Amino acid sequence: MWRHEQNVRDLEAQWNASATMNTGIRNPEGATEIEEVGRASISRRAQTIQDSPIRKLSATAEARKRRGIRVFHLNIGQPDLPTSPVVFETIRNLQLSTLAYAPSNGLPQAVSAWRNYLRVMGIDVEESEIIVTAGGSEAIIFAMCAICDAGDDIIVFEPFYTNYNGFASIANVKLNPVPLTIQNGFHLPPTREIERHITSRTKAILICNPANPTGTIYTRDELQRLCDVVRRHNLFFLSDEVYREFAYESSVQSVMDFPEITQRAVLLDSSSKRFNVCGARIGALVSHNREIVQSAFRFGMARLSVASIEQLALVPLLNSPRTYTDPIVQEFKRRRDVVYEGLKEIPGVTFYKPEGAFYIVIGLPVRDSEHFSKWLIEEFEHGNETVLLAPAQGFYASTGKGTNEVRLAFMLKTEDLKRSLVVLRYALEAFGRQF
Amino acid sequence: MWRHEQNVRDLEAQWNASATMNTGIRNPEGATEIEEVGRASISRRAQTIQDSPIRKLSATAEARKRRGIRVFHLNIGQPDLPTSPVVFETIRNLQLSTLAYAPSNGLPQAVSAWRNYLRVMGIDVEESEIIVTAGGSEAIIFAMCAICDAGDDIIVFEPFYTNYNGFASIANVKLNPVPLTIQNGFHLPPTREIERHITSRTKAILICNPANPTGTIYTRDELQRLCDVVRRHNLFFLSDEVYREFAYESSVQSVMDFPEITQRAVLLDSSSKRFNVCGARIGALVSHNREIVQSAFRFGMARLSVASIEQLALVPLLNSPRTYTDPIVQEFKRRRDVVYEGLKEIPGVTFYKPEGAFYIVIGLPVRDSEHFSKWLIEEFEHGNETVLLAPAQGFYASTGKGTNEVRLAFMLKTEDLKRSLVVLRYALEAFGRQF
Repeated sequence: MWRHEQNVRDLEAQWNASATMNTGIRNPEGATEIEEVGRASISRRAQTIQDSPIRKLSATAEARKRRGIRVFHLNIGQPDLPTSPVVFETIRNLQLSTLAYAPSNGLPQAVSAWRNYLRVMGIDVEESEIIVTAGGSEAIIFAMCAICDAGDDIIVFEPFYTNYNGFASIANVKLNPVPLTIQNGFHLPPTREIERHITSRTKAILICNPANPTGTIYTRDELQRLCDVVRRHNLFFLSDEVYREFAYESSVQSVMDFPEITQRAVLLDSSSKRFNVCGARIGALVSHNREIVQSAFRFGMARLSVASIEQLALVPLLNSPRTYTDPIVQEFKRRRDVVYEGLKEIPGVTFYKPEGAFYIVIGLPVRDSEHFSKWLIEEFEHGNETVLLAPAQGFYASTGKGTNEVRLAFMLKTEDLKRSLVVLRYALEAFGRQF
Repeated sequence: MWRHEQNVRDLEAQWNASATMNTGIRNPEGATEIEEVGRASISRRAQTIQDSPIRKLSATAEARKRRGIRVFHLNIGQPDLPTSPVVFETIRNLQLSTLAYAPSNGLPQAVSAWRNYLRVMGIDVEESEIIVTAGGSEAIIFAMCAICDAGDDIIVFEPFYTNYNGFASIANVKLNPVPLTIQNGFHLPPTREIERHITSRTKAILICNPANPTGTIYTRDELQRLCDVVRRHNLFFLSDEVYREFAYESSVQSVMDFPEITQRAVLLDSSSKRFNVCGARIGALVSHNREIVQSAFRFGMARLSVASIEQLALVPLLNSPRTYTDPIVQEFKRRRDVVYEGLKEIPGVTFYKPEGAFYIVIGLPVRDSEHFSKWLIEEFEHGNETVLLAPAQGFYASTGKGTNEVRLAFMLKTEDLKRSLVVLRYALEAFGRQF
């Protein structure tokens, strides 16, 4: 598996090297004498799009490894488990003579398979209500474009999945953050607090359920409250349910479960996490609202199609999902339990028991978790081991939030998770003595 | 190869059926009494995004076929030739245990292969100047987002590739069309005519070279004039070069060939046409401008990665391109010649000899080519055969342009191209007698 971190370090080294080179040749020999006006600059949205908050520390982690330190990665959200061999067998057995454009809404086998998968999950939709997308990422971008014009806003609950910022940037949409708090395990605040944030440009509420980065699963009552809000304020209700199966105590209510909002609900989904096929880039946008689906279809027609091979490779998994997801979910439940128990042993940490997904946001007894995380990966070691964390500030849109928080992702086998939390405990002790 | 037309007919039938169904349940039994305000509507950009102008007639074509009429498709831009078996062999031989996210700028083998390919094409760039994208479509969207904020505009030359409208819609960019004319084979107008269109919000010029839908290849002098314009007006110069090899008399100048605009030039490319791998969805954004590449990289990070399997499958082709492209280009040169000769036999048609790509826009002796194309596919037959054309109005942004024009795509073997032009001649005769 190729390491992103090394790739980015190389890229940045080359970008920095080229910055010292000639940035353009004015009137080279033989060229027309032109009165050149300035230097074309990139857009404001390109200037402001966030760099990945996780990336900065990854480069340091690689440097530490080269010096012989073992680094436990608690920072990344990509499952560490192997992909089912069925995916590769299916690909090897494909009988294709040509790699032609698929239909813009997806190959019929893929659309049908998504429908079957959703039905197993208790979500009943027609094939005409499904658009296969290039990952959940594209589903979200299409939903934003279908619902919002430039400058409209979408209510999100912070901390939220950082990449929503990037999608909003592409779609020219403002994310309108309603703060959550670790004090109640990042569940929803009172309805009036949510409604207080709605503006004249608000077009939708977007949730992730189960949530990244918090692992929170919204209760039926919480979702009902959001249904009431979207009906009162004439909004759409976008629900990112990519972690649907990762629910350890109770099942997840889907946004599609609420009959009074059939025309407002838009389900955004991805095959990546539940099937360990992150590199396939296959997701779906699903809605009973015909205009929404037609809009997504038209945006889909512009980019023509989603890659055919991956659509076909996932059909066996979608058609028999629990065979593939049950073992994965069981493993992550074990990991969730191990992390929860391990956190109990660390003095001064604020935590809760995440109901789903494979993340938790915890509060550390430090003033600045970015500073702590940097020190941890740059300097600290215990038995030649250290930990890479994801500071939580990157998951908040508002500045000054989550300053003592980090997100842990459970991407290690249980004994490594246990050990990494022990290392974290030692680190906090040492840090507390030093700063 | 699955037919898009049938897919879309089915979709539309289902959408129309659901329109007569209950559009939402107000206050179903047990639901909260909510004062519901109206019905959430889609965005303005979703309302205005063009439906594919080619699609409407495709449904009719399917109906004709079911009634025993043979339809010659001159309307579609997807190559009809088989994909090289090397692609499928490469895929079958992949030794992957996991389908993980690729690096956001592309797998290193893919980036390296694109670099090799470009070097063979006489374009010398570093790997850090390449972002592998999900098709040329994504390269264009990323370029638009990197360069333009909402409401900025990009100069295009009409008629242009229809899907630029969809990308502009996603990116909230205005396309600012400068009209071309069939009278000079859709080459560029005088520079002052181009500059007349530039506004305070213009950020770039976008060309397709060789061009879709016209097959025009811009001369070095034309490109030099555009270089002068972008320097004088501080613009970027975006060049869609997906048809690069399809140049039948002289080679294509790349936007990357002009040293005085290294910081303004952005190359947009795709593997689809030259390698017959449209369904792979692999393209590239290339630039010496580091900020542009960094911006594209950040947008790429938001959607995480491009599908890994296709990136790997195309490496052998990119590393040895002419082996694969030469036969394809030779075939399309033959087809271009056959079409050109065939058009000479049709009275009243305005045409030229397209220098590249596999299209031509021709003027018909009719008032309304949409009406003619519709009649042709709905009613006409000669020896139980008819032709499906693409009315050119859809390739213009301005209304009232190209009203007697159609685009022909050379997606048939040469004897079928010859026959389809004979059918077209008979059709124009019959239409002229009738209307």
